[in-house]
Amino acid sequence: MTGRTASDGPDASGAPARGNGTARRRGRPPRTESAGTRDRILDTAREEFALRGYEKTSVRGIAKAAGVDSALVHHYFGTKEQVFEAAVEVAFAPVLTARNTVLEGPLDEVGERMTRMIFGLWESPVTRAPLLAIVRSAVNNEIAAGVFRRLVASQLLRRIAGQLDAPDAELRAELAAAQMVGIAMIRYVIKVEPLASADPELIIGRVAPVVQRHLTGP
Amino acid sequence: MTGRTASDGPDASGAPARGNGTARRRGRPPRTESAGTRDRILDTAREEFALRGYEKTSVRGIAKAAGVDSALVHHYFGTKEQVFEAAVEVAFAPVLTARNTVLEGPLDEVGERMTRMIFGLWESPVTRAPLLAIVRSAVNNEIAAGVFRRLVASQLLRRIAGQLDAPDAELRAELAAAQMVGIAMIRYVIKVEPLASADPELIIGRVAPVVQRHLTGP
Repeated sequence: MTGRTASDGPDASGAPARGNGTARRRGRPPRTESAGTRDRILDTAREEFALRGYEKTSVRGIAKAAGVDSALVHHYFGTKEQVFEAAVEVAFAPVLTARNTVLEGPLDEVGERMTRMIFGLWESPVTRAPLLAIVRSAVNNEIAAGVFRRLVASQLLRRIAGQLDAPDAELRAELAAAQMVGIAMIRYVIKVEPLASADPELIIGRVAPVVQRHLTGP
Repeated sequence: MTGRTASDGPDASGAPARGNGTARRRGRPPRTESAGTRDRILDTAREEFALRGYEKTSVRGIAKAAGVDSALVHHYFGTKEQVFEAAVEVAFAPVLTARNTVLEGPLDEVGERMTRMIFGLWESPVTRAPLLAIVRSAVNNEIAAGVFRRLVASQLLRRIAGQLDAPDAELRAELAAAQMVGIAMIRYVIKVEPLASADPELIIGRVAPVVQRHLTGP
């Protein structure tokens, strides 16, 4: 959809290209160039949002760090809110594809599968940055909180709840998520010991039964 | 200790007094005046930190809103970090006095007592503001995160852990706290439904057994 545009050529800023070590080449075909530029903007946006939070990040700042013109960022993604949503959506891509892995299999092990999936996201540097960006931003900004509600509540929790055979399935999914959110806050965001340095397997062993209980318990 | 100082008289700013409807009276004895002013500065600081978070709040802004000179704020509390710590400490005062209530009584009901105590803090408007201030600030600022670690981890969790007869008592206390922190995030900060509007007793009924399990379970 965004394969070819007027501003799709080498940018006028003259700033050096950034991210993934991909230098921009003038001779590349527009489609490839477009995909590469779009990805680089997204990578940069994630870093900026994670570092500064939603409010202090500007489209201009993202553009500058990515070595492109602000107009190109707006062209690809729209408003700052839409850049943010696109930037953090990648954090949930594994969740949404993994949800089948989470929900397939015995229901009495769904707690462990969900716990491992969420821990995997936080332990991986690739997804930890956008998750930090979401948390830092959603806590302080209503627009970013709205993105969190759409991505987490609508896309992730509602699908998990849909698999539970209980009238309060959504509340159950949220209580389970709350346990994970709280651990993420204490371990990865505020870094309180001993939880911050505890072995992931130890924590999973404690948390999975609780998540299971919230989802399928009495 | 701060009963009488050079800057303890009526302030020079001429701004109207704020908070609790206490108008400043020139004829009041210094000690009373001092206590009233100190409290008003603390109330204002809590509101400002809760509204703006740590980074965007300034001692100058707090002083202005409280109708006093910045020097007086520094005189009473010291640096911005110390103003913040004093402002949020009030949120933990009930916790620290309530800790005996939490820890006295049967150990197999400690989960419910802890859950009710934390919920009480979040449901009360008086303590919700400083709690929001702590969370919003700690997530985005390392200095504020340090205050959180000192107040929550050292003062609250370590005391709870001290009552548990287990080698991993601190980790247990943190996992229990994580459940509460996550619910606070989802219910009070990001406000995801249905948890945001659910009846407190319903949530307590779900959460207390989990907190209990973390603290004293196998």
